[in-house]
Amino acid sequence: MAKILLLHGPNLNLLGRREPAIYGHDTLSDIDARATAQVAAAGHELLCRQSNAEHQLIDWVQAAPGEGVAMIVINPGGYTHTSVALRDALAAVALPFIEVHLSNVAAREPFRRHSYFSDLALGTISGLGALGYELALTAALRRLGDPA
Amino acid sequence: MAKILLLHGPNLNLLGRREPAIYGHDTLSDIDARATAQVAAAGHELLCRQSNAEHQLIDWVQAAPGEGVAMIVINPGGYTHTSVALRDALAAVALPFIEVHLSNVAAREPFRRHSYFSDLALGTISGLGALGYELALTAALRRLGDPA
Amino acid sequence: MAKILLLHGPNLNLLGRREPAIYGHDTLSDIDARATAQVAAAGHELLCRQSNAEHQLIDWVQAAPGEGVAMIVINPGGYTHTSVALRDALAAVALPFIEVHLSNVAAREPFRRHSYFSDLALGTISGLGALGYELALTAALRRLGDPA
Amino acid sequence: MAKILLLHGPNLNLLGRREPAIYGHDTLSDIDARATAQVAAAGHELLCRQSNAEHQLIDWVQAAPGEGVAMIVINPGGYTHTSVALRDALAAVALPFIEVHLSNVAAREPFRRHSYFSDLALGTISGLGALGYELALTAALRRLGDPA
Amino acid sequence: MAKILLLHGPNLNLLGRREPAIYGHDTLSDIDARATAQVAAAGHELLCRQSNAEHQLIDWVQAAPGEGVAMIVINPGGYTHTSVALRDALAAVALPFIEVHLSNVAAREPFRRHSYFSDLALGTISGLGALGYELALTAALRRLGDPA
Amino acid sequence: MAKILLLHGPNLNLLGRREPAIYGHDTLSDIDARATAQVAAAGHELLCRQSNAEHQLIDWVQAAPGEGVAMIVINPGGYTHTSVALRDALAAVALPFIEVHLSNVAAREPFRRHSYFSDLALGTISGLGALGYELALTAALRRLGDPA
Amino acid sequence: MAKILLLHGPNLNLLGRREPAIYGHDTLSDIDARATAQVAAAGHELLCRQSNAEHQLIDWVQAAPGEGVAMIVINPGGYTHTSVALRDALAAVALPFIEVHLSNVAAREPFRRHSYFSDLALGTISGLGALGYELALTAALRRLGDPA
Amino acid sequence: MAKILLLHGPNLNLLGRREPAIYGHDTLSDIDARATAQVAAAGHELLCRQSNAEHQLIDWVQAAPGEGVAMIVINPGGYTHTSVALRDALAAVALPFIEVHLSNVAAREPFRRHSYFSDLALGTISGLGALGYELALTAALRRLGDPA
Amino acid sequence: MAKILLLHGPNLNLLGRREPAIYGHDTLSDIDARATAQVAAAGHELLCRQSNAEHQLIDWVQAAPGEGVAMIVINPGGYTHTSVALRDALAAVALPFIEVHLSNVAAREPFRRHSYFSDLALGTISGLGALGYELALTAALRRLGDPA
Amino acid sequence: MAKILLLHGPNLNLLGRREPAIYGHDTLSDIDARATAQVAAAGHELLCRQSNAEHQLIDWVQAAPGEGVAMIVINPGGYTHTSVALRDALAAVALPFIEVHLSNVAAREPFRRHSYFSDLALGTISGLGALGYELALTAALRRLGDPA
Amino acid sequence: MAKILLLHGPNLNLLGRREPAIYGHDTLSDIDARATAQVAAAGHELLCRQSNAEHQLIDWVQAAPGEGVAMIVINPGGYTHTSVALRDALAAVALPFIEVHLSNVAAREPFRRHSYFSDLALGTISGLGALGYELALTAALRRLGDPA
Amino acid sequence: MAKILLLHGPNLNLLGRREPAIYGHDTLSDIDARATAQVAAAGHELLCRQSNAEHQLIDWVQAAPGEGVAMIVINPGGYTHTSVALRDALAAVALPFIEVHLSNVAAREPFRRHSYFSDLALGTISGLGALGYELALTAALRRLGDPA
Repeated sequence: MAKILLLHGPNLNLLGRREPAIYGHDTLSDIDARATAQVAAAGHELLCRQSNAEHQLIDWVQAAPGEGVAMIVINPGGYTHTSVALRDALAAVALPFIEVHLSNVAAREPFRRHSYFSDLALGTISGLGALGYELALTAALRRLGDPA
Repeated sequence: MAKILLLHGPNLNLLGRREPAIYGHDTLSDIDARATAQVAAAGHELLCRQSNAEHQLIDWVQAAPGEGVAMIVINPGGYTHTSVALRDALAAVALPFIEVHLSNVAAREPFRRHSYFSDLALGTISGLGALGYELALTAALRRLGDPA
Repeated sequence: MAKILLLHGPNLNLLGRREPAIYGHDTLSDIDARATAQVAAAGHELLCRQSNAEHQLIDWVQAAPGEGVAMIVINPGGYTHTSVALRDALAAVALPFIEVHLSNVAAREPFRRHSYFSDLALGTISGLGALGYELALTAALRRLGDPA
Repeated sequence: MAKILLLHGPNLNLLGRREPAIYGHDTLSDIDARATAQVAAAGHELLCRQSNAEHQLIDWVQAAPGEGVAMIVINPGGYTHTSVALRDALAAVALPFIEVHLSNVAAREPFRRHSYFSDLALGTISGLGALGYELALTAALRRLGDPA
Repeated sequence: MAKILLLHGPNLNLLGRREPAIYGHDTLSDIDARATAQVAAAGHELLCRQSNAEHQLIDWVQAAPGEGVAMIVINPGGYTHTSVALRDALAAVALPFIEVHLSNVAAREPFRRHSYFSDLALGTISGLGALGYELALTAALRRLGDPA
Repeated sequence: MAKILLLHGPNLNLLGRREPAIYGHDTLSDIDARATAQVAAAGHELLCRQSNAEHQLIDWVQAAPGEGVAMIVINPGGYTHTSVALRDALAAVALPFIEVHLSNVAAREPFRRHSYFSDLALGTISGLGALGYELALTAALRRLGDPA
Repeated sequence: MAKILLLHGPNLNLLGRREPAIYGHDTLSDIDARATAQVAAAGHELLCRQSNAEHQLIDWVQAAPGEGVAMIVINPGGYTHTSVALRDALAAVALPFIEVHLSNVAAREPFRRHSYFSDLALGTISGLGALGYELALTAALRRLGDPA
Repeated sequence: MAKILLLHGPNLNLLGRREPAIYGHDTLSDIDARATAQVAAAGHELLCRQSNAEHQLIDWVQAAPGEGVAMIVINPGGYTHTSVALRDALAAVALPFIEVHLSNVAAREPFRRHSYFSDLALGTISGLGALGYELALTAALRRLGDPA
Repeated sequence: MAKILLLHGPNLNLLGRREPAIYGHDTLSDIDARATAQVAAAGHELLCRQSNAEHQLIDWVQAAPGEGVAMIVINPGGYTHTSVALRDALAAVALPFIEVHLSNVAAREPFRRHSYFSDLALGTISGLGALGYELALTAALRRLGDPA
Repeated sequence: MAKILLLHGPNLNLLGRREPAIYGHDTLSDIDARATAQVAAAGHELLCRQSNAEHQLIDWVQAAPGEGVAMIVINPGGYTHTSVALRDALAAVALPFIEVHLSNVAAREPFRRHSYFSDLALGTISGLGALGYELALTAALRRLGDPA
Repeated sequence: MAKILLLHGPNLNLLGRREPAIYGHDTLSDIDARATAQVAAAGHELLCRQSNAEHQLIDWVQAAPGEGVAMIVINPGGYTHTSVALRDALAAVALPFIEVHLSNVAAREPFRRHSYFSDLALGTISGLGALGYELALTAALRRLGDPA
Repeated sequence: MAKILLLHGPNLNLLGRREPAIYGHDTLSDIDARATAQVAAAGHELLCRQSNAEHQLIDWVQAAPGEGVAMIVINPGGYTHTSVALRDALAAVALPFIEVHLSNVAAREPFRRHSYFSDLALGTISGLGALGYELALTAALRRLGDPA
């Protein structure tokens, strides 16, 4: 059994309550519950955490190896475009991770086209809404089964 | 009666104690006291908060609709130029806000010429010192009286 | 008693007649009348002028010291982004001035993000409609009372 | 029953034969076979096509509405970064599409960071190898079931 | 009697069937028919060709001198912004040509603001819909009559 | 019967007298006379005006709705690349307009590649000499007949 | 006997009255008087003109050939960096001209580093104060004597 | 005995017939004949192919390993500056190649200064006309004899 | 006796445990212990603090004058490239500071080439590993002894 | 009596022998002789030196204060655009200097538009041929007479 | 019999002694000896010179016409990217020259992609090691035999 | 016993005599004497050299391995920003080196922000005055003792 860490960055705690036409009616709890079930069904454990604080996300990433986490799925939210410190934390712990964005960042403001994470990530999924998490976890689980 | 939230970003807690030749002798308490009186005189309530922490500012913005806040006046300080996460919080709660800068950001370092907030704000006031807050609150109060 | 010069740049003569949904129903005459009353109430005199001609605006700025003007409030309109000559006139007469924009220039075309005036101005107010003039005059009057 | 079109751009016919350490041992036939089975299992039909020719890809996109295609999954290969004409074809037929890249384009040459497709796509999946196709088809099938 | 070659680039075969609100109800056949009549009325011959393939367009341009073509009117479609090879073909045959765009490329995505053809063309007509072809042919015919 | 306003910007008064090898032997009077006849033949009226002064052009644009002008054809000359104020005037009166350039601006200095007018215009015609005016008026007249 | 035209652009009418520490105590009249004497001493005639209006400067340049002017010395002031129209006028009349700047434009704001005139001028003199005019006229007179 | 593939990109079929003052009087057949003799004299075989079609060039590159080709000499013509897909084909087959340009690309339009091929090539020869092919084949033959 | 504040930014708490081949086997405790001894040996006091939180670093900088700190040595970690707020804190307290980087930031990703701190610092030391702290403290102590 | 140093940079020793159509028939000796006479006539001494070596020019600049030089006139030739070291030498000796260019650098290659010297110079004269030296010396002599 | 000048720039004296895996085991003497033989075999004379000094290279280029040199082959080494003065010397003597680089400059640091020489050269050969010199001399000799 | 080479670039011979308020009263001799003593005290030998000539610095770097130099400390002065040739010399000899700048280059002109040396250096020390040499030598000596 392996552990996967699902990290949600700033403002993702608002999911389901704000702008449902864009982001859907699912709350973050709904998403986390489905994700937990998906991972459990594959015989693994999922840790779900959200914070608006850059340092809290860094702390969780730093602690992940000590918690036995084998893979990270992260939606860095607004920190995608601004946080070298969070990038450095992921590089330091050297855990494989997948980057997820709910919205299609390529279709929004120009400053959203650059991510401090994508070049370090295994891969990136964007624009597919909450389904993006499910797909990223599918990829993470597949890789846990076949790490080569 | 409506609530207005006055948010001060990082380093603004130093006002009045440091570089008075530039920023004046008013402390942040002085400014908040005058601002509170100005809003109270118009029959409304002002909430004044300052933090050096990006996440604290985000949390306050996220909580504002739940507190019944109708309008925000914000001086994002150094986060003006770096915080997509705080911008996203303001966009998510969809409250009208006015951006204030004490100093004339156009006359300082080139990196201060870009704000992650101005294009979402109702308007921006910069370079007029502590008076900028008073003017922004005047605009906020005027708009509360005539939201059209 | 001091004199304040209120300068309106190109196309501002159309205010109130064109695009009232955006710019409001006030004509430039309405705005000038209210502004004149505001300044008179403070015991000072306001000179209101509008021109579509860059050179006329330059001439008025050059003449201001000779007319006893102590402060300028200016909305340079389209010349905001293109007139080094008008900037040079303001620098030459060395009168303090406040820059006003009716619309939120940060939310419009990219070329509107640069102003040839802001770094020389005392401060800038944008996006608050005709109220911006009133706020700028409030700031001007306050400074006349306390020039330090 | 709906039809999905799976389009592979230039050089993807080499999959499995070249650089298996990078791209894996699956040939394009293997991938297409698995994808066809995945879509068939959901009660839909998959059309799989590959071409090194920009115009052939354009022709297939143009023909898709006439063939009853409801959704496109496309890996534009090298045309990702250079083909406005293929982009225009996708915009013209106005079919929803998902963009897939086998490799992590953010970790390669700088010119691969720009895609002429991402801002029009529903979403983008990159860096997850052949699994990316499976995930994209999962998303396509999910959306066919819930087009809202 | 002279020959004029009217070349339509990629996706223009969709005219009249897709997005008629934008591009009008005329099909490419309608346009070609009217254009042929216009040129015939002036006592000249028009060759009308469309292709989605860059190389086909290049081949037609290369063949034009051998066919006795005296002037080219070309809408390069998406190749406007990407095809140095087509530009080189036009430079090599050294036939005068006029560039036409149906839509106003200056009002669309930034990458449409650059054309690999305009600096070599006699002139460019954009944004006037199918009428642009008629105007370009008018210019071509006028020049045939007065080549100086 | 409708009115069309034909506006010529700075230095166009020199036409026919200077650099005839480039600009032809037609004077501006010749061009205006032919244009007036073309419009009159279609049962409409043409107003022809030229000025070297930016503000004069702005004034004429501002006055156009009051004069009953239905469409503008404008060659902004050197102001093409520098006048936000003239652009703003055209945007304010919201009359449809067509932009004309005698020379091929794409083949001249790099600073001529940007126009402050093209993205607001119905369309642009450049490089076709005095014939450009005739073509633009043809387009204007066609649109008057079929404004949809 | 030849005529030389000395053109002063915007704000140069303020010379001697404003910022004498920078620009010296000479008024524009003083400068023009000395320049007139210098040219007269060489047996030629000098025409001295100043305007804050771009169009007035254009008109004077356009009129110069008709007045028999053989050479122009011009300080375009703030229009140096913004006026394509004035540049076009100088190119159109095709008179040789020398560009003068009182201050060292290379040592001021970055936007002053680009001139729309220098590449068309015979030469440029900057940073040498009022003496720059004298030197430019020396060069003009020398060239009148030896036009090869 | 080894095989060398000599690939000519778009418009090179026009050699000798167009612009002989620039490109010389040799036709592509002349060049290919001389090149074939040069390679045969060294005991090897040369395959000569030209196409205006990007996909044809890609197909030939993909097929090269299967044909026993040991080295490629390529003049990508206009695709030099635009074809990521052709670059990817060369990278995928991993055959050593030498890039040739007839003209001096550094002395032409700025867009010709970037090649999608040079950083992958063994080396590049430009500006030496048809002799460039002979030199590139000399280098290829030398390397075949001494692959270290 | 003076106080020096040694500030370590995000992820520096991982030193010695992660990537020892790069960063060495010293833990942050080891470094702080040696640094404390170095400063104590010079008769002064060292305060050592590390945080992953931008606001905590800001708070410590703001508190430094009140604690009697005379000089700061800071390794801002990932905030080097992103934190205007921390820069502003250092500027506000106006304490002299030296910037240290363990790795050679000039040899890493391009975004690491810009620091928001270097232009305000007394000096910068980078690439020399943990020794960089010792050198920076040597410089700080030297300056405490000779503040001129 | 004061000394002026006239420094000629690389390739200026070729004057008069190469490209006389552009640079005139004067050799550097001719120019130096005339310049020496001009300065002597004003009662001062001129030192004339030319070198192709950057370090030689630096050495002469460094030695100038020791030689009693009061002012420098320099044509840095190709080092204008590349030598920070020569710039630093001029800044270090803090002697006033005037920069001269024979040709009009604004009308040549883009890289010639930047000078490492102009912002430090008293002024710059370019495009006026050998006369530029005479004018620069006139300015230098005038300033020697009136250093304020 | 003609003379060819072979110029080697800075650090090329190290060839064969440093980094032989990259640059081969040939010393500069070996290369010069083979080159001399190659040119002698064609009945011409080769002058071989190397210097680390920019001015020495300039001096040799300036002296070349006087020595009867008819053609130059030059590897400017590091001065390729920085020396306008050496470029100017080559332009001044107006001798045809070929530029050679041992390594593939397109595959190295970005600053090596720009050469101050290529646009003036007959042609450029890069990436082919010492063979590049032989090829360049072959081209030079060919051109000596057929200068047209 | 090892040898360290201390190289000073252009204008550093002026230290102590020019601008002592900025650079201190130490002459280069003072600095070299202290540095020699520091290295001697550690049982090693220091070679101190200064030149204004780029080629002399290159020659010394090239000669260093032959002299038994184990490490270089270099202040490239103005060549920091312009000399690829000196960079190449350091890369060729492959000796470890430390880059030192007396002044804080990040706080000066923008062109000083780029160094051609930093990415190859072990590390960089800037802004700490003459102390920077001492610190760099401390680092060099430490590394000599522990080369791992």
